[in-house]
Amino acid sequence: MSDIIEVSSNKIFGGWQKVYSHESYELGCRMNFGIFLPSQAEESPVPVIYWLSGLTCTETNFVQKAGAQKYASEQGVVLVAPDTSPRNLNIPEEDKDWDFGTGAGFYIDATTEPWKRNYRMYSYVTKELPALINDKFPILSDKQSIMGHSMGGHGALICALKNPGLYKTVSAFAPISNPISSPWGRKALSGYLGGTETNALWKDWDATELAKKYNGPPLDILVDQGKEDRFLKDGQLLPENLLSAAKDAGLPLVLRFQEGYDHSYFFISTFIEDHIKHHVKYLKS
Amino acid sequence: MSDIIEVSSNKIFGGWQKVYSHESYELGCRMNFGIFLPSQAEESPVPVIYWLSGLTCTETNFVQKAGAQKYASEQGVVLVAPDTSPRNLNIPEEDKDWDFGTGAGFYIDATTEPWKRNYRMYSYVTKELPALINDKFPILSDKQSIMGHSMGGHGALICALKNPGLYKTVSAFAPISNPISSPWGRKALSGYLGGTETNALWKDWDATELAKKYNGPPLDILVDQGKEDRFLKDGQLLPENLLSAAKDAGLPLVLRFQEGYDHSYFFISTFIEDHIKHHVKYLKS
Repeated sequence: MSDIIEVSSNKIFGGWQKVYSHESYELGCRMNFGIFLPSQAEESPVPVIYWLSGLTCTETNFVQKAGAQKYASEQGVVLVAPDTSPRNLNIPEEDKDWDFGTGAGFYIDATTEPWKRNYRMYSYVTKELPALINDKFPILSDKQSIMGHSMGGHGALICALKNPGLYKTVSAFAPISNPISSPWGRKALSGYLGGTETNALWKDWDATELAKKYNGPPLDILVDQGKEDRFLKDGQLLPENLLSAAKDAGLPLVLRFQEGYDHSYFFISTFIEDHIKHHVKYLKS
Repeated sequence: MSDIIEVSSNKIFGGWQKVYSHESYELGCRMNFGIFLPSQAEESPVPVIYWLSGLTCTETNFVQKAGAQKYASEQGVVLVAPDTSPRNLNIPEEDKDWDFGTGAGFYIDATTEPWKRNYRMYSYVTKELPALINDKFPILSDKQSIMGHSMGGHGALICALKNPGLYKTVSAFAPISNPISSPWGRKALSGYLGGTETNALWKDWDATELAKKYNGPPLDILVDQGKEDRFLKDGQLLPENLLSAAKDAGLPLVLRFQEGYDHSYFFISTFIEDHIKHHVKYLKS
Protein backbone atom coordinates (compact mmCIF):
# COMPACT_ATOMS: atom_id res chain seq x y z
CA MET A 1 0.00 0.00 0.00
CA SER A 2 1.58 3.29 -1.07
CA ASP A 3 1.89 6.29 1.20
CA ILE A 4 -0.36 9.26 0.62
CA ILE A 5 0.78 12.87 0.85
CA GLU A 6 -1.63 15.69 1.61
CA VAL A 7 -1.60 18.28 -1.18
CA SER A 8 -4.33 20.55 0.22
CA SER A 9 -6.91 20.64 2.99
CA ASN A 10 -9.87 23.01 3.28
CA LYS A 11 -12.76 22.97 5.68
CA ILE A 12 -16.14 23.05 3.91
CA PHE A 13 -19.67 22.43 5.19
CA GLY A 14 -18.31 21.18 8.50
CA GLY A 15 -16.13 18.53 6.83
CA TRP A 16 -12.80 18.54 5.02
CA GLN A 17 -12.06 18.70 1.32
CA LYS A 18 -8.62 17.28 0.82
CA VAL A 19 -6.39 16.42 -2.12
CA TYR A 20 -3.74 13.72 -1.75
CA SER A 21 -1.09 12.32 -4.04
CA HIS A 22 0.32 8.80 -4.14
CA GLU A 23 2.43 6.50 -6.32
CA SER A 24 0.09 4.32 -8.38
CA TYR A 25 1.38 0.87 -9.32
CA GLU A 26 -1.39 0.34 -11.88
CA LEU A 27 -0.57 3.59 -13.69
CA GLY A 28 3.17 3.74 -13.01
CA CYS A 29 3.09 7.40 -12.01
CA ARG A 30 2.19 9.79 -9.22
CA MET A 31 -1.56 10.50 -9.03
CA ASN A 32 -3.74 13.03 -7.23
CA PHE A 33 -7.20 12.35 -5.89
CA GLY A 34 -9.72 14.55 -4.11
CA ILE A 35 -11.59 13.30 -1.06
CA PHE A 36 -14.36 14.98 0.92
CA LEU A 37 -14.63 13.73 4.49
CA PRO A 38 -17.89 14.71 6.21
CA SER A 39 -17.87 15.42 9.94
CA GLN A 40 -19.71 12.12 10.53
CA ALA A 41 -16.53 10.29 9.48
CA GLU A 42 -14.83 11.62 12.61
CA GLU A 43 -17.22 9.46 14.67
CA SER A 44 -17.42 6.21 12.73
CA PRO A 45 -16.91 4.74 9.22
CA VAL A 46 -19.26 6.00 6.51
CA PRO A 47 -20.21 5.00 2.94
CA VAL A 48 -18.25 6.27 -0.06
CA ILE A 49 -19.27 7.53 -3.50
CA TYR A 50 -16.69 7.57 -6.29
CA TRP A 51 -16.93 10.36 -8.88
CA LEU A 52 -15.33 9.94 -12.31
CA SER A 53 -14.74 13.14 -14.29
CA GLY A 54 -14.90 13.84 -18.01
CA LEU A 55 -12.41 14.61 -20.76
CA THR A 56 -9.65 17.14 -19.93
CA CYS A 57 -10.56 17.22 -16.22
CA THR A 58 -8.32 16.62 -13.24
CA GLU A 59 -9.46 15.87 -9.70
CA THR A 60 -10.11 19.58 -9.13
CA ASN A 61 -13.10 20.21 -11.44
CA PHE A 62 -15.58 18.23 -9.38
CA VAL A 63 -14.04 19.44 -6.11
CA GLN A 64 -14.39 23.12 -7.03
CA LYS A 65 -17.48 23.29 -9.24
CA ALA A 66 -20.06 20.62 -8.46
CA GLY A 67 -21.15 21.88 -5.03
CA ALA A 68 -21.48 18.27 -3.92
CA GLN A 69 -19.89 18.70 -0.49
CA LYS A 70 -23.04 20.32 0.90
CA TYR A 71 -25.13 17.23 0.20
CA ALA A 72 -22.41 14.74 1.15
CA SER A 73 -22.12 16.60 4.43
CA GLU A 74 -25.88 16.42 5.03
CA GLN A 75 -25.96 12.70 4.18
CA GLY A 76 -22.69 11.70 5.85
CA VAL A 77 -20.93 10.14 2.86
CA VAL A 78 -17.35 10.39 1.62
CA LEU A 79 -16.77 11.58 -1.96
CA VAL A 80 -13.66 10.44 -3.84
CA ALA A 81 -12.67 12.11 -7.12
CA PRO A 82 -9.68 10.63 -8.98
CA ASP A 83 -7.82 12.21 -11.87
CA THR A 84 -8.82 11.17 -15.42
CA SER A 85 -5.59 9.57 -16.71
CA PRO A 86 -2.00 8.86 -15.78
CA ARG A 87 0.23 11.94 -15.95
CA ASN A 88 3.70 12.94 -17.11
CA LEU A 89 4.71 9.62 -18.62
CA ASN A 90 6.56 11.07 -21.62
CA ILE A 91 4.76 8.66 -23.94
CA PRO A 92 5.02 10.05 -27.49
CA GLU A 93 1.78 11.83 -28.46
CA GLU A 94 0.19 11.48 -24.99
CA ASP A 95 -0.44 15.25 -25.02
CA LYS A 96 -1.23 15.62 -28.72
CA ASP A 97 -5.05 15.45 -28.51
CA TRP A 98 -7.44 16.67 -25.80
CA ASP A 99 -9.69 13.62 -26.29
CA PHE A 100 -7.02 10.88 -26.16
CA GLY A 101 -4.05 10.25 -23.85
CA THR A 102 -3.51 12.70 -21.00
CA GLY A 103 -6.85 13.72 -19.45
CA ALA A 104 -8.64 11.05 -21.48
CA GLY A 105 -7.95 7.65 -19.94
CA PHE A 106 -11.53 6.50 -20.60
CA TYR A 107 -11.46 4.20 -17.53
CA ILE A 108 -10.17 1.38 -19.72
CA ASP A 109 -7.26 -1.05 -19.29
CA ALA A 110 -5.35 -0.55 -22.54
CA THR A 111 -4.00 -3.54 -24.49
CA THR A 112 -1.97 -1.77 -27.18
CA GLU A 113 1.50 -0.25 -27.24
CA PRO A 114 2.55 2.27 -26.02
CA TRP A 115 -0.46 2.55 -23.70
CA LYS A 116 -0.87 -0.85 -22.07
CA ARG A 117 1.68 -0.45 -19.28
CA ASN A 118 0.20 2.76 -17.85
CA TYR A 119 -3.28 3.41 -19.21
CA ARG A 120 -5.03 1.15 -16.72
CA MET A 121 -7.61 3.54 -15.30
CA TYR A 122 -10.19 0.76 -14.97
CA SER A 123 -8.03 -1.28 -12.63
CA TYR A 124 -6.99 1.91 -10.88
CA VAL A 125 -10.53 3.11 -10.07
CA THR A 126 -12.07 -0.30 -9.35
CA LYS A 127 -9.20 -1.92 -7.40
CA GLU A 128 -6.11 0.09 -6.50
CA LEU A 129 -7.78 3.32 -5.44
CA PRO A 130 -10.60 1.74 -3.36
CA ALA A 131 -8.06 -0.48 -1.56
CA LEU A 132 -6.03 2.62 -0.73
CA ILE A 133 -9.08 4.64 0.34
CA ASN A 134 -10.41 1.81 2.50
CA ASP A 135 -7.01 1.46 4.14
CA LYS A 136 -6.39 5.13 4.89
CA PHE A 137 -9.84 6.54 5.67
CA PRO A 138 -12.86 5.59 7.84
CA ILE A 139 -14.88 3.91 5.10
CA LEU A 140 -17.55 1.20 5.16
CA SER A 141 -15.87 -0.79 2.41
CA ASP A 142 -19.01 -2.77 1.56
CA LYS A 143 -20.99 0.46 1.08
CA GLN A 144 -19.63 2.03 -2.08
CA SER A 145 -21.19 3.40 -5.23
CA ILE A 146 -20.06 5.28 -8.31
CA MET A 147 -21.11 8.20 -10.50
CA GLY A 148 -19.57 10.33 -13.20
CA HIS A 149 -19.89 12.82 -16.03
CA SER A 150 -19.50 12.35 -19.78
CA MET A 151 -16.38 10.13 -20.21
CA GLY A 152 -16.68 9.60 -16.44
CA GLY A 153 -20.36 8.69 -16.80
CA HIS A 154 -19.25 5.97 -19.21
CA GLY A 155 -16.60 5.00 -16.67
CA ALA A 156 -19.06 4.77 -13.79
CA LEU A 157 -21.50 2.70 -15.83
CA ILE A 158 -18.92 0.17 -17.03
CA CYS A 159 -17.35 -0.15 -13.58
CA ALA A 160 -20.77 -1.01 -12.11
CA LEU A 161 -21.95 -3.23 -14.97
CA LYS A 162 -18.69 -5.22 -15.13
CA ASN A 163 -18.66 -5.86 -11.36
CA PRO A 164 -22.10 -7.01 -10.20
CA GLY A 165 -22.50 -6.30 -6.49
CA LEU A 166 -19.35 -4.21 -6.10
CA TYR A 167 -21.26 -0.93 -6.24
CA LYS A 168 -24.61 -0.47 -4.51
CA THR A 169 -25.78 1.82 -7.29
CA VAL A 170 -24.56 3.90 -10.22
CA SER A 171 -25.58 7.18 -11.81
CA ALA A 172 -24.32 9.44 -14.55
CA PHE A 173 -24.55 12.92 -16.01
CA ALA A 174 -24.52 12.99 -19.81
CA PRO A 175 -22.56 9.73 -20.10
CA ILE A 176 -20.90 8.50 -23.27
CA SER A 177 -23.42 5.67 -23.22
CA ASN A 178 -22.46 3.69 -26.29
CA PRO A 179 -18.80 4.46 -27.10
CA ILE A 180 -18.64 1.87 -29.90
CA SER A 181 -21.00 4.13 -31.82
CA SER A 182 -19.64 7.57 -30.84
CA PRO A 183 -16.68 9.43 -32.38
CA TRP A 184 -14.99 10.01 -28.99
CA GLY A 185 -15.51 6.38 -28.05
CA ARG A 186 -14.27 4.94 -31.33
CA LYS A 187 -11.11 7.01 -31.13
CA ALA A 188 -10.43 5.86 -27.56
CA LEU A 189 -11.29 2.20 -28.11
CA SER A 190 -9.27 2.09 -31.31
CA GLY A 191 -6.28 3.71 -29.64
CA TYR A 192 -6.29 1.78 -26.36
CA LEU A 193 -7.57 -1.60 -27.64
CA GLY A 194 -6.70 -1.52 -31.33
CA GLY A 195 -8.71 -2.29 -34.43
CA THR A 196 -12.23 -1.24 -35.25
CA GLU A 197 -15.66 -2.05 -33.86
CA THR A 198 -15.23 -5.59 -35.21
CA ASN A 199 -12.67 -6.07 -32.39
CA ALA A 200 -14.76 -8.09 -29.93
CA LEU A 201 -12.85 -6.52 -27.02
CA TRP A 202 -14.62 -3.21 -27.60
CA LYS A 203 -17.92 -4.59 -26.31
CA ASP A 204 -16.36 -5.26 -22.90
CA TRP A 205 -15.98 -1.50 -22.43
CA ASP A 206 -19.33 -0.28 -23.73
CA ALA A 207 -22.14 0.42 -21.24
CA THR A 208 -24.89 -0.32 -23.74
CA GLU A 209 -23.35 -3.68 -24.65
CA LEU A 210 -22.66 -4.52 -21.01
CA ALA A 211 -26.23 -3.64 -19.99
CA LYS A 212 -27.53 -6.22 -22.49
CA LYS A 213 -25.79 -9.04 -20.67
CA TYR A 214 -25.80 -7.80 -17.07
CA ASN A 215 -26.43 -10.62 -14.65
CA GLY A 216 -26.23 -9.69 -11.01
CA PRO A 217 -27.98 -8.07 -8.08
CA PRO A 218 -30.50 -5.33 -8.88
CA LEU A 219 -28.85 -2.14 -10.05
CA ASP A 220 -30.99 1.00 -10.07
CA ILE A 221 -29.42 3.39 -12.60
CA LEU A 222 -30.09 7.14 -12.74
CA VAL A 223 -29.00 9.18 -15.77
CA ASP A 224 -29.49 12.93 -16.25
CA GLN A 225 -29.02 14.44 -19.70
CA GLY A 226 -29.29 18.11 -20.67
CA LYS A 227 -31.46 18.60 -23.73
CA GLU A 228 -29.28 21.50 -24.94
CA ASP A 229 -26.05 19.52 -24.60
CA ARG A 230 -24.18 20.01 -27.88
CA PHE A 231 -22.45 16.67 -27.50
CA LEU A 232 -25.86 14.99 -27.34
CA LYS A 233 -26.73 16.64 -30.63
CA ASP A 234 -23.36 15.58 -32.07
CA GLY A 235 -24.08 11.91 -31.37
CA GLN A 236 -21.30 11.52 -28.79
CA LEU A 237 -23.54 10.45 -25.89
CA LEU A 238 -26.39 8.26 -27.25
CA PRO A 239 -28.23 7.72 -23.95
CA GLU A 240 -31.28 6.38 -25.83
CA ASN A 241 -29.21 3.34 -26.85
CA LEU A 242 -28.40 2.60 -23.22
CA LEU A 243 -32.00 3.12 -22.18
CA SER A 244 -33.19 0.71 -24.81
CA ALA A 245 -30.61 -1.94 -23.87
CA ALA A 246 -31.46 -1.61 -20.17
CA LYS A 247 -35.16 -1.94 -20.91
CA ASP A 248 -34.60 -5.11 -22.94
CA ALA A 249 -32.43 -6.54 -20.18
CA GLY A 250 -34.89 -5.67 -17.42
CA LEU A 251 -32.43 -3.28 -15.78
CA PRO A 252 -34.18 -0.40 -14.06
CA LEU A 253 -32.79 2.79 -15.60
CA VAL A 254 -34.33 6.24 -15.29
CA LEU A 255 -33.14 8.62 -18.02
CA ARG A 256 -34.20 12.21 -17.35
CA PHE A 257 -33.91 14.75 -20.16
CA GLN A 258 -33.47 18.17 -18.57
CA GLU A 259 -34.91 21.08 -20.57
CA GLY A 260 -32.43 23.86 -21.33
CA TYR A 261 -29.38 22.33 -19.64
CA ASP A 262 -26.01 21.83 -21.33
CA HIS A 263 -22.91 19.68 -20.70
CA SER A 264 -21.31 21.92 -18.04
CA TYR A 265 -20.79 21.79 -14.30
CA PHE A 266 -23.68 24.28 -14.03
CA PHE A 267 -25.87 21.37 -15.12
CA ILE A 268 -24.15 18.95 -12.73
CA SER A 269 -24.42 21.32 -9.76
CA THR A 270 -28.18 21.62 -10.32
CA PHE A 271 -28.86 17.87 -10.10
CA ILE A 272 -26.03 16.53 -7.93
CA GLU A 273 -28.28 16.63 -4.86
CA ASP A 274 -30.72 14.24 -6.57
CA HIS A 275 -27.86 11.89 -7.44
CA ILE A 276 -26.39 11.86 -3.95
CA LYS A 277 -29.83 11.13 -2.49
CA HIS A 278 -30.29 8.34 -5.04
CA HIS A 279 -26.98 6.81 -3.95
CA VAL A 280 -27.66 7.20 -0.24
CA LYS A 281 -30.92 5.27 -0.63
CA TYR A 282 -28.82 2.20 -1.51
CA LEU A 283 -25.73 2.97 0.55
CA LYS A 284 -27.69 3.18 3.78
CA SER A 285 -30.16 0.36 3.19
CA MET B 1 -25.70 53.31 -22.28
CA SER B 2 -23.27 50.85 -23.84
CA ASP B 3 -24.35 47.67 -25.59
CA ILE B 4 -23.80 44.37 -23.88
CA ILE B 5 -22.61 41.24 -25.67
CA GLU B 6 -23.35 37.77 -24.33
CA VAL B 7 -20.13 35.83 -23.71
CA SER B 8 -21.70 32.68 -22.24
CA SER B 9 -25.06 31.39 -21.07
CA ASN B 10 -25.72 28.27 -18.98
CA LYS B 11 -28.88 27.07 -17.34
CA ILE B 12 -28.45 26.40 -13.62
CA PHE B 13 -31.02 25.77 -10.87
CA GLY B 14 -33.84 26.72 -13.20
CA GLY B 15 -32.34 30.13 -13.99
CA TRP B 16 -29.52 31.38 -16.22
CA GLN B 17 -25.91 32.09 -15.42
CA LYS B 18 -24.64 34.48 -18.04
CA VAL B 19 -21.48 36.44 -18.69
CA TYR B 20 -21.64 39.66 -20.70
CA SER B 21 -19.03 42.13 -21.90
CA HIS B 22 -19.43 45.86 -22.47
CA GLU B 23 -17.38 49.03 -23.04
CA SER B 24 -16.95 50.80 -19.71
CA TYR B 25 -16.62 54.59 -19.86
CA GLU B 26 -15.45 54.80 -16.25
CA LEU B 27 -12.65 52.31 -16.84
CA GLY B 28 -11.90 53.05 -20.49
CA CYS B 29 -11.82 49.39 -21.49
CA ARG B 30 -13.96 46.38 -22.25
CA MET B 31 -15.24 44.63 -19.12
CA ASN B 32 -16.92 41.31 -18.36
CA PHE B 33 -19.51 40.74 -15.68
CA GLY B 34 -21.38 37.64 -14.53
CA ILE B 35 -25.11 37.75 -13.88
CA PHE B 36 -27.39 35.04 -12.51
CA LEU B 37 -31.03 35.50 -13.50
CA PRO B 38 -33.43 33.34 -11.47
CA SER B 39 -36.56 32.01 -13.13
CA GLN B 40 -38.65 34.49 -11.11
CA ALA B 41 -37.11 37.30 -13.19
CA GLU B 42 -38.95 35.94 -16.24
CA GLU B 43 -42.23 36.94 -14.55
CA SER B 44 -41.46 40.31 -12.96
CA PRO B 45 -38.54 42.46 -11.74
CA VAL B 46 -36.59 41.13 -8.77
CA PRO B 47 -34.00 42.48 -6.27
CA VAL B 48 -30.28 42.37 -7.03
CA ILE B 49 -27.22 41.52 -4.95
CA TYR B 50 -23.80 42.71 -6.15
CA TRP B 51 -20.79 40.50 -5.38
CA LEU B 52 -17.27 41.95 -5.34
CA SER B 53 -14.41 39.47 -5.65
CA GLY B 54 -10.96 39.46 -4.14
CA LEU B 55 -7.40 39.92 -5.40
CA THR B 56 -6.48 38.13 -8.66
CA CYS B 57 -10.08 37.13 -9.38
CA THR B 58 -12.14 37.76 -12.48
CA GLU B 59 -15.93 37.52 -12.76
CA THR B 60 -15.63 33.73 -13.09
CA ASN B 61 -14.43 32.74 -9.59
CA PHE B 62 -17.70 33.53 -7.86
CA VAL B 63 -19.75 32.22 -10.77
CA GLN B 64 -18.02 28.82 -10.75
CA LYS B 65 -17.08 28.22 -7.13
CA ALA B 66 -19.44 29.88 -4.65
CA GLY B 67 -22.52 27.75 -5.29
CA ALA B 68 -24.64 30.88 -4.78
CA GLN B 69 -27.04 30.27 -7.67
CA LYS B 70 -28.92 27.62 -5.71
CA TYR B 71 -29.90 30.08 -3.00
CA ALA B 72 -30.48 33.01 -5.36
CA SER B 73 -32.80 30.73 -7.31
CA GLU B 74 -34.70 29.75 -4.14
CA GLN B 75 -34.99 33.39 -3.05
CA GLY B 76 -35.62 34.93 -6.46
CA VAL B 77 -32.77 37.44 -6.55
CA VAL B 78 -30.32 38.42 -9.28
CA LEU B 79 -26.59 38.11 -8.56
CA VAL B 80 -24.14 40.40 -10.36
CA ALA B 81 -20.39 39.69 -10.23
CA PRO B 82 -18.10 42.26 -11.89
CA ASP B 83 -14.42 41.82 -12.66
CA THR B 84 -11.88 43.18 -10.14
CA SER B 85 -10.04 45.81 -12.20
CA PRO B 86 -9.81 47.31 -15.67
CA ARG B 87 -8.02 45.04 -18.15
CA ASN B 88 -5.49 45.26 -20.99
CA LEU B 89 -4.71 48.96 -20.67
CA ASN B 90 -0.97 48.69 -21.34
CA ILE B 91 -0.19 50.90 -18.35
CA PRO B 92 3.46 50.30 -17.37
CA GLU B 93 3.67 47.92 -14.40
CA GLU B 94 -0.09 47.15 -14.34
CA ASP B 95 0.76 43.43 -14.46
CA LYS B 96 3.91 43.57 -12.31
CA ASP B 97 2.35 42.59 -8.95
CA TRP B 98 -0.57 40.30 -8.14
CA ASP B 99 -1.76 42.65 -5.38
CA PHE B 100 -1.70 45.94 -7.31
CA GLY B 101 -2.90 46.93 -10.80
CA THR B 102 -4.61 44.23 -12.88
CA GLY B 103 -6.87 42.06 -10.72
CA ALA B 104 -6.43 44.46 -7.80
CA GLY B 105 -8.53 47.57 -8.43
CA PHE B 106 -9.50 47.77 -4.74
CA TYR B 107 -12.85 49.40 -5.63
CA ILE B 108 -11.21 52.82 -5.38
CA ASP B 109 -11.26 55.85 -7.70
CA ALA B 110 -7.54 56.51 -8.19
CA THR B 111 -6.16 60.05 -8.04
CA THR B 112 -2.54 59.45 -9.09
CA GLU B 113 -0.84 58.99 -12.45
CA PRO B 114 -0.87 56.67 -14.36
CA TRP B 115 -3.94 55.14 -12.67
CA LYS B 116 -6.47 57.94 -12.33
CA ARG B 117 -7.97 57.77 -15.82
CA ASN B 118 -8.88 54.06 -15.67
CA TYR B 119 -8.69 52.73 -12.12
CA ARG B 120 -12.16 53.91 -11.15
CA MET B 121 -13.67 50.68 -9.87
CA TYR B 122 -15.63 52.52 -7.18
CA SER B 123 -17.55 54.63 -9.69
CA TYR B 124 -17.88 51.57 -11.92
CA VAL B 125 -19.50 49.32 -9.31
CA THR B 126 -21.62 51.98 -7.59
CA LYS B 127 -22.82 53.94 -10.65
CA GLU B 128 -21.99 52.74 -14.16
CA LEU B 129 -22.62 49.03 -13.70
CA PRO B 130 -25.91 49.35 -11.72
CA ALA B 131 -27.24 51.82 -14.32
CA LEU B 132 -26.41 49.31 -17.05
CA ILE B 133 -27.88 46.36 -15.12
CA ASN B 134 -31.08 48.27 -14.29
CA ASP B 135 -31.45 49.25 -17.94
CA LYS B 136 -30.88 45.81 -19.46
CA PHE B 137 -32.39 43.38 -16.94
CA PRO B 138 -35.66 43.05 -14.97
CA ILE B 139 -34.37 44.58 -11.72
CA LEU B 140 -36.10 46.36 -8.85
CA SER B 141 -33.60 49.22 -8.88
CA ASP B 142 -34.49 50.37 -5.36
CA LYS B 143 -33.88 46.86 -3.97
CA GLN B 144 -30.14 46.35 -4.21
CA SER B 145 -27.48 45.22 -1.77
CA ILE B 146 -23.80 44.32 -1.88
CA MET B 147 -21.43 41.68 -0.59
CA GLY B 148 -17.86 40.59 -1.26
CA HIS B 149 -14.75 38.66 -0.28
CA SER B 150 -11.39 39.91 0.98
CA MET B 151 -10.53 42.94 -1.23
CA GLY B 152 -14.16 42.67 -2.40
CA GLY B 153 -15.37 42.58 1.21
CA HIS B 154 -13.57 45.89 1.71
CA GLY B 155 -15.19 47.06 -1.54
CA ALA B 156 -18.69 46.06 -0.47
CA LEU B 157 -18.29 47.74 2.94
CA ILE B 158 -17.02 51.05 1.57
CA CYS B 159 -19.66 51.15 -1.18
CA ALA B 160 -22.40 50.74 1.44
CA LEU B 161 -20.86 53.03 4.07
CA LYS B 162 -20.14 55.86 1.59
CA ASN B 163 -23.68 55.76 0.14
CA PRO B 164 -26.24 55.69 2.95
CA GLY B 165 -29.51 54.24 1.69
CA LEU B 166 -28.17 53.06 -1.68
CA TYR B 167 -27.81 49.46 -0.52
CA LYS B 168 -30.39 47.77 1.70
CA THR B 169 -27.69 45.80 3.47
CA VAL B 170 -24.06 44.73 3.17
CA SER B 171 -22.09 41.64 4.14
CA ALA B 172 -18.57 40.37 3.72
CA PHE B 173 -16.38 37.28 3.86
CA ALA B 174 -12.94 37.93 5.37
CA PRO B 175 -12.90 41.60 4.34
CA ILE B 176 -9.81 43.80 4.36
CA SER B 177 -11.53 45.76 7.11
CA ASN B 178 -9.00 48.46 7.87
CA PRO B 179 -6.78 48.88 4.79
CA ILE B 180 -4.94 51.90 6.24
CA SER B 181 -3.42 49.46 8.73
CA SER B 182 -2.86 46.43 6.49
CA PRO B 183 0.08 45.75 4.13
CA TRP B 184 -2.20 45.07 1.13
CA GLY B 185 -4.25 48.17 1.87
CA ARG B 186 -1.28 50.47 2.35
CA LYS B 187 0.22 49.37 -0.93
CA ALA B 188 -3.05 49.98 -2.78
CA LEU B 189 -3.87 53.30 -1.12
CA SER B 190 -0.32 54.56 -1.59
CA GLY B 191 -0.34 53.53 -5.25
CA TYR B 192 -3.79 54.74 -6.23
CA LEU B 193 -4.04 57.80 -3.93
CA GLY B 194 -0.41 58.67 -3.21
CA GLY B 195 1.46 59.42 0.00
CA THR B 196 1.23 57.57 3.29
CA GLU B 197 -1.42 57.15 5.93
CA THR B 198 -1.04 60.86 6.73
CA ASN B 199 -2.81 61.50 3.39
CA ALA B 200 -6.31 62.38 4.63
CA LEU B 201 -7.80 60.89 1.45
CA TRP B 202 -6.99 57.38 2.66
CA LYS B 203 -9.68 57.53 5.35
CA ASP B 204 -12.36 57.98 2.68
CA TRP B 205 -11.61 54.43 1.46
CA ASP B 206 -11.28 52.59 4.75
CA ALA B 207 -14.30 50.71 6.12
CA THR B 208 -13.23 51.10 9.74
CA GLU B 209 -12.82 54.86 9.35
CA LEU B 210 -16.08 55.17 7.41
CA ALA B 211 -17.99 53.17 10.02
CA LYS B 212 -16.91 55.70 12.68
CA LYS B 213 -18.73 58.53 10.91
CA TYR B 214 -21.60 56.67 9.23
CA ASN B 215 -24.76 58.73 9.33
CA GLY B 216 -27.71 57.23 7.48
CA PRO B 217 -30.48 54.67 7.56
CA PRO B 218 -29.90 51.54 9.66
CA LEU B 219 -27.36 49.21 8.05
CA ASP B 220 -27.23 45.65 9.40
CA ILE B 221 -23.77 44.29 8.59
CA LEU B 222 -22.84 40.60 8.57
CA VAL B 223 -19.18 39.53 8.45
CA ASP B 224 -17.88 35.95 8.38
CA GLN B 225 -14.22 35.29 9.10
CA GLY B 226 -12.42 31.95 9.04
CA LYS B 227 -10.29 31.43 12.15
CA GLU B 228 -7.65 29.52 10.15
CA ASP B 229 -7.37 32.22 7.48
CA ARG B 230 -3.64 32.88 7.08
CA PHE B 231 -4.32 36.45 5.97
CA LEU B 232 -6.11 37.06 9.26
CA LYS B 233 -3.02 35.86 11.09
CA ASP B 234 -0.84 38.05 8.84
CA GLY B 235 -2.75 41.18 9.88
CA GLN B 236 -4.18 41.85 6.42
CA LEU B 237 -7.86 41.71 7.44
CA LEU B 238 -8.25 43.24 10.94
CA PRO B 239 -12.00 42.64 11.34
CA GLU B 240 -11.75 43.40 15.08
CA ASN B 241 -10.95 47.05 14.21
CA LEU B 242 -14.13 47.29 12.12
CA LEU B 243 -16.18 45.61 14.84
CA SER B 244 -14.90 48.05 17.43
CA ALA B 245 -15.59 51.08 15.21
CA ALA B 246 -19.10 49.84 14.40
CA LYS B 247 -19.81 49.28 18.09
CA ASP B 248 -18.67 52.81 18.98
CA ALA B 249 -20.80 54.25 16.17
CA GLY B 250 -23.89 52.24 17.11
CA LEU B 251 -23.84 50.36 13.80
CA PRO B 252 -25.19 46.81 14.14
CA LEU B 253 -22.43 44.49 12.94
CA VAL B 254 -22.28 40.75 13.55
CA LEU B 255 -18.76 39.33 13.18
CA ARG B 256 -18.74 35.53 13.18
CA PHE B 257 -15.43 33.74 13.61
CA GLN B 258 -15.74 30.33 11.93
CA GLU B 259 -13.65 27.57 13.49
CA GLY B 260 -11.33 25.76 11.06
CA TYR B 261 -12.21 27.73 7.92
CA ASP B 262 -9.66 29.46 5.70
CA HIS B 263 -9.74 32.22 3.06
CA SER B 264 -10.94 30.07 0.14
CA TYR B 265 -14.15 29.64 -1.83
CA PHE B 266 -14.69 26.44 0.18
CA PHE B 267 -15.29 28.79 3.15
CA ILE B 268 -17.49 31.10 1.06
CA SER B 269 -19.61 28.25 -0.34
CA THR B 270 -20.32 27.04 3.20
CA PHE B 271 -21.80 30.33 4.40
CA ILE B 272 -23.12 31.98 1.23
CA GLU B 273 -26.64 30.70 1.99
CA ASP B 274 -26.62 32.61 5.31
CA HIS B 275 -25.49 35.77 3.53
CA ILE B 276 -28.11 35.57 0.80
CA LYS B 277 -30.82 35.03 3.42
CA HIS B 278 -29.47 38.01 5.38
CA HIS B 279 -29.72 40.15 2.25
CA VAL B 280 -33.16 38.92 1.28
CA LYS B 281 -34.49 39.92 4.71
CA TYR B 282 -33.81 43.55 3.75
CA LEU B 283 -34.38 43.30 0.00
CA LYS B 284 -37.90 41.97 0.41
CA SER B 285 -39.02 44.06 3.40
